[in-house]
Amino acid sequence: MIGGGEGSFIGAIHYKAAMLDGYYQLVCGAFSSDHAKSLRSAGYYHVEPSRVYATWQEMFEKEAALSDEERMEAVIIATPNHLHHPQAMMALDKGFHVICDKPVTISSKEALELEQKVKESGLVFALTHTYTGYPMVKEARELVTSGKLGKIRKVVVEYPQGWLSTPLEQEGNKQASWRANPKFNGPGGCLGDIGVHAENLAEYFTGLTINELCADITSFVPGRKLDDDASVLVRFKGGAKGLIFASQISAGEENDLNIKVYGEKGGLEWHQMEPNTLLLKWLDQPMQILRAGANYQNLSERTRWNCRTPGGHPEGYIEAFANIYRNAAYHILEKMDPDFSSPDFIEYPTISDGVRGMRFIEKVIESAKGSEKWLKFHS
Amino acid sequence: MIGGGEGSFIGAIHYKAAMLDGYYQLVCGAFSSDHAKSLRSAGYYHVEPSRVYATWQEMFEKEAALSDEERMEAVIIATPNHLHHPQAMMALDKGFHVICDKPVTISSKEALELEQKVKESGLVFALTHTYTGYPMVKEARELVTSGKLGKIRKVVVEYPQGWLSTPLEQEGNKQASWRANPKFNGPGGCLGDIGVHAENLAEYFTGLTINELCADITSFVPGRKLDDDASVLVRFKGGAKGLIFASQISAGEENDLNIKVYGEKGGLEWHQMEPNTLLLKWLDQPMQILRAGANYQNLSERTRWNCRTPGGHPEGYIEAFANIYRNAAYHILEKMDPDFSSPDFIEYPTISDGVRGMRFIEKVIESAKGSEKWLKFHS
Amino acid sequence: MIGGGEGSFIGAIHYKAAMLDGYYQLVCGAFSSDHAKSLRSAGYYHVEPSRVYATWQEMFEKEAALSDEERMEAVIIATPNHLHHPQAMMALDKGFHVICDKPVTISSKEALELEQKVKESGLVFALTHTYTGYPMVKEARELVTSGKLGKIRKVVVEYPQGWLSTPLEQEGNKQASWRANPKFNGPGGCLGDIGVHAENLAEYFTGLTINELCADITSFVPGRKLDDDASVLVRFKGGAKGLIFASQISAGEENDLNIKVYGEKGGLEWHQMEPNTLLLKWLDQPMQILRAGANYQNLSERTRWNCRTPGGHPEGYIEAFANIYRNAAYHILEKMDPDFSSPDFIEYPTISDGVRGMRFIEKVIESAKGSEKWLKFHS
Amino acid sequence: MIGGGEGSFIGAIHYKAAMLDGYYQLVCGAFSSDHAKSLRSAGYYHVEPSRVYATWQEMFEKEAALSDEERMEAVIIATPNHLHHPQAMMALDKGFHVICDKPVTISSKEALELEQKVKESGLVFALTHTYTGYPMVKEARELVTSGKLGKIRKVVVEYPQGWLSTPLEQEGNKQASWRANPKFNGPGGCLGDIGVHAENLAEYFTGLTINELCADITSFVPGRKLDDDASVLVRFKGGAKGLIFASQISAGEENDLNIKVYGEKGGLEWHQMEPNTLLLKWLDQPMQILRAGANYQNLSERTRWNCRTPGGHPEGYIEAFANIYRNAAYHILEKMDPDFSSPDFIEYPTISDGVRGMRFIEKVIESAKGSEKWLKFHS
Repeated sequence: MIGGGEGSFIGAIHYKAAMLDGYYQLVCGAFSSDHAKSLRSAGYYHVEPSRVYATWQEMFEKEAALSDEERMEAVIIATPNHLHHPQAMMALDKGFHVICDKPVTISSKEALELEQKVKESGLVFALTHTYTGYPMVKEARELVTSGKLGKIRKVVVEYPQGWLSTPLEQEGNKQASWRANPKFNGPGGCLGDIGVHAENLAEYFTGLTINELCADITSFVPGRKLDDDASVLVRFKGGAKGLIFASQISAGEENDLNIKVYGEKGGLEWHQMEPNTLLLKWLDQPMQILRAGANYQNLSERTRWNCRTPGGHPEGYIEAFANIYRNAAYHILEKMDPDFSSPDFIEYPTISDGVRGMRFIEKVIESAKGSEKWLKFHS
Repeated sequence: MIGGGEGSFIGAIHYKAAMLDGYYQLVCGAFSSDHAKSLRSAGYYHVEPSRVYATWQEMFEKEAALSDEERMEAVIIATPNHLHHPQAMMALDKGFHVICDKPVTISSKEALELEQKVKESGLVFALTHTYTGYPMVKEARELVTSGKLGKIRKVVVEYPQGWLSTPLEQEGNKQASWRANPKFNGPGGCLGDIGVHAENLAEYFTGLTINELCADITSFVPGRKLDDDASVLVRFKGGAKGLIFASQISAGEENDLNIKVYGEKGGLEWHQMEPNTLLLKWLDQPMQILRAGANYQNLSERTRWNCRTPGGHPEGYIEAFANIYRNAAYHILEKMDPDFSSPDFIEYPTISDGVRGMRFIEKVIESAKGSEKWLKFHS
Repeated sequence: MIGGGEGSFIGAIHYKAAMLDGYYQLVCGAFSSDHAKSLRSAGYYHVEPSRVYATWQEMFEKEAALSDEERMEAVIIATPNHLHHPQAMMALDKGFHVICDKPVTISSKEALELEQKVKESGLVFALTHTYTGYPMVKEARELVTSGKLGKIRKVVVEYPQGWLSTPLEQEGNKQASWRANPKFNGPGGCLGDIGVHAENLAEYFTGLTINELCADITSFVPGRKLDDDASVLVRFKGGAKGLIFASQISAGEENDLNIKVYGEKGGLEWHQMEPNTLLLKWLDQPMQILRAGANYQNLSERTRWNCRTPGGHPEGYIEAFANIYRNAAYHILEKMDPDFSSPDFIEYPTISDGVRGMRFIEKVIESAKGSEKWLKFHS
Repeated sequence: MIGGGEGSFIGAIHYKAAMLDGYYQLVCGAFSSDHAKSLRSAGYYHVEPSRVYATWQEMFEKEAALSDEERMEAVIIATPNHLHHPQAMMALDKGFHVICDKPVTISSKEALELEQKVKESGLVFALTHTYTGYPMVKEARELVTSGKLGKIRKVVVEYPQGWLSTPLEQEGNKQASWRANPKFNGPGGCLGDIGVHAENLAEYFTGLTINELCADITSFVPGRKLDDDASVLVRFKGGAKGLIFASQISAGEENDLNIKVYGEKGGLEWHQMEPNTLLLKWLDQPMQILRAGANYQNLSERTRWNCRTPGGHPEGYIEAFANIYRNAAYHILEKMDPDFSSPDFIEYPTISDGVRGMRFIEKVIESAKGSEKWLKFHS
């Protein structure tokens, strides 16, 4: 693991998600640019101090030199955004599979370069867009793409958080600090942190792709350098319309990502804070409550695969995160063992999701700054 | 009452809302342009057949000629939109107070004319924007305008319905038919039916006024002449940003008007389908559930006035509608009796709300048709 | 109306429920035993002061002497419990239909006497067990009794309120005072006020009758003379088991009556505080959300009759109350006009519900005091 | 691990809960009484086939003979109930810490024997009463025992499941089969599977102990040998009253364990299926929504310790289970390293909870069979 040192929220999550199903073992790390601090994290991660490296470059060099038996096989990148690109490039160059935090880079140019590198390397690249790891999001995708709701007309994604309602980054909060600095974070504030999750969810949930957008972004907190609120009108290929809003000044909200989708025959609604429930609405029948793990309904094979407990035994955020790890493990095992074959429904977010996310950030900012009403997503 | 004949949903609601608190008695009507049908409605409304008139013009003429004792004092206008203007103009000319359905007219030009007439007449003009009649919406307005949440930053109003997901108006549904015809309905389809409610709620709830907007509207159902879906980015005077969406093709939704507002210190959330609950969110404290009729919290005097039952005995749509009737009754009583004086907190939507609503419809359509990103609400 | 004078919660509810649909007009009253106070209530109820009587006996006498045209036809009894029996007996003797508050009397002996009188009189006697007036409770009864859920196995009714958590009756609260006094209230405190609603809901919702019970009751608040909490194990005829609990010391609860029923094939759940929703659970299918007023599901004719608005326009407590008034009006109209005929599905709680309620109170108290485990409901 | 072979739900949960935080490594197992099957499970659990033993006795013998470095330190017992006692006794005799599934044994006699053995051994014994591992249950316990709600008056615990609504055990369902057989399961059917969770939650949540009870139990499904439904009136020491119901024939319910507690000043409500929310109700203030992981409220140190994610990133069943593992790990580390010291707030269910659970099962059955109304819990 690179990053994830003391005080990191996401490093601990990566670790637990990797451990949960027993497919991974954490063998080495460069947890911090401060070696002493990095060593202090070794205990937390149950890693031998001898394999805690002073720099990530050293880690890649030294691990690559180890025997097949000993060498790490995949690296977790849990560092500030500006480091993802160089670290992932070097990891792939050295032959390591990569599990990388989002947003994938700090520009679409970097993301495209990385996409090229991933293709050339033939290695696994998983991007931790956690929210599309939830089983009921996968079930929704199956329902929409199989045509059960008819043609999709409207998609509404909301992602309100409140934790940046005050100038935390000016008050010594470490996580807020690097996120508020364009050099480390990239150009999108709220956009880079959660806007890309909203975009990823909109496209994954529906199987649709955004074609045009029109945006308004704001930095509400005085002195803040990056956006802390974004509202976007979107148009999808094929004619569906939508709204995406992401905000970190929605005072009193925790992490209320949610999505509503309406087709000709019915609709779907899902809330990340109650992730085991998927509401299925019909034009001509009562609404149904689909539940993760339930054995009485025709949940798809893919959905069942991504559940660990029976209905009513709630699964949460770490389990969704772990679905990315477990699914990526299957593809890594395929690379390692020619006889191993993954089921068809194994999937997880990858570099192409990263490329779309970076483009989304850039296009939203471009739209917000300009006076042109509609911007093509791909131009 | 004009309109509200057999099969009318809204006529029955006006009647029950008027009856509920005993301030009104329905004495005459022109319930339909078909006199026989109108007479058949007399029984339902418990009106003497002798005071069921063939036309609304006849009703105004004949009632105006009756003695003070007998004559009706106020008229309910529950007809298709294109008739509101001529009917309200004549009512005011003849000295009758008016309780009128929304949208107030079919153009802002008509609305402005009517505004002028209301001013000149000195009579009461109430517009049935039902949703701002709910007590917890009034409580929200008190909380926001008193500054409890700090300066408002973000306002999100959603109004999804699904009942026009199919071409009902092409299948003989009477209500859908006139609403789908610009001649009777005015230029805004979904906008005129529910978009104006969303706009009215956004401004009433927050005390803010929309300054600029940028819209996308659609007619999803083949053959439909008017919009059935609208998404609008809005900017309020003073810097708040927002989204308003109204849709009648949100398959499986009933009438899910809801609003979320975020200020510097906290937020509010209200859902019309569970109207007795107001969520009050704080940056630094647990969320609170404020409840209509509760006696343990400092609900404002205005809010209490608009409740009829103690907490846990739910009030609904008819009661919200009746709040407009009861509050308007107080102002009518003031006009009739110089000694009668209403409490300060008596209020209800009136012609100025109607003017803003018509402008909203027109500006959203103008924005949706144009390529200019932001339109001033008032230009 | 007898009772309902200044400060009465339930008098105002009776009035609004009676007015809502236009079937009733309030023409006379004895609103208080204090004539001056009674006269002050005349304005609120829009009753002529000349028909505000000093006593209820005088009212019955004088009204009975009026002409058919003028005379009141039915009386609302909204007085403390100990007066229900003498007032209802005299009303029936004088030929007036009766709409009476619950509990019907202060003993089962009185209730049985009144039942005899109702039968002999041939007059309408409606008992305002409000909660069985909700449309989705009626829908539940249809679903259960039609066998959709299979044979019923378990019934759980909860009725927690918190308003008597402190010794309100010792602090001058008028409503609490008479309810805390066995002389005015009868033997059951919480049992008489809300326990009978829970029992009535359990039996109405399922069509089952309680056969045996085993109870524990408590007066938690120091100095309180009557029970403020009751827990009851019940056994129904036919083998279903159940729990009923009613409590007025459930601090922080408003009026959270709710019921869950489980049969061989499925279950139902309904909450009074969200009365327009009925959850329908299946062994082998996702849960469904049935909604009052929805046009897309096979709501029974009886249920539709008891709705006034389309789905998503919430109806509440007053509307449920008004269903008793409207349904009773149909039977009163039948009595008045031999040509008038009510639909089959017209029904409302009546004296037999009152008899069962009184017996429930008495049996629960007997069980709680004794050491015998199971008491027969009817012995 | 003993048990947890192919097809076991709970074995996989134990494994993931143990793995999640990195404190445990699974090194050996006797996953099934069928050695071939046991070996097939080795892959799932990432255990070396050489340490998959034919019998649990062999495992204890052989592991005890290994060096300190290699030997397992603690054993997971995930077998049918009748094996818990002999397996735990032998494990403790051989010096292994024990993490044991509930119910702890099949009789209180066995449980008491085991309690004695645990005391004598000085080893850690953790019992996986999962539900008291949830952070908001721990927060509730802090709130109640610190007196914030005043003296507790009423406790209501419901635990409805529907999965045994049909005779699954007669249709080859393996889990249902042994649970339905008194020889393997012990005397309580639904009582042993979930009733003990309800009892454990009632006592843990409130800090109160049950003193007397009065019960009704039923086997609704034809041919079933053990109870599938239980309703119990309870009285706590100190005067609080309560109801506990557990049912596995509540058709359509998943795993809806929930609890409501009312004190003199306020109340609490928690639902296992939405475990990150705790409702805090007040007599004289609006209800508050306390949330796991929230940083804006005074969650206790113990609660925070048992959270892994910030507010709005839901934790679930596996995390609650893992709290038992992580907390037990701290006590195991203390036993292994005299310098290691656990924080005061480290706790988890242990043998004393097991003893109370077994007594609860036995007393409920005794009460249900008898005609005496109240049974002392301890006599």
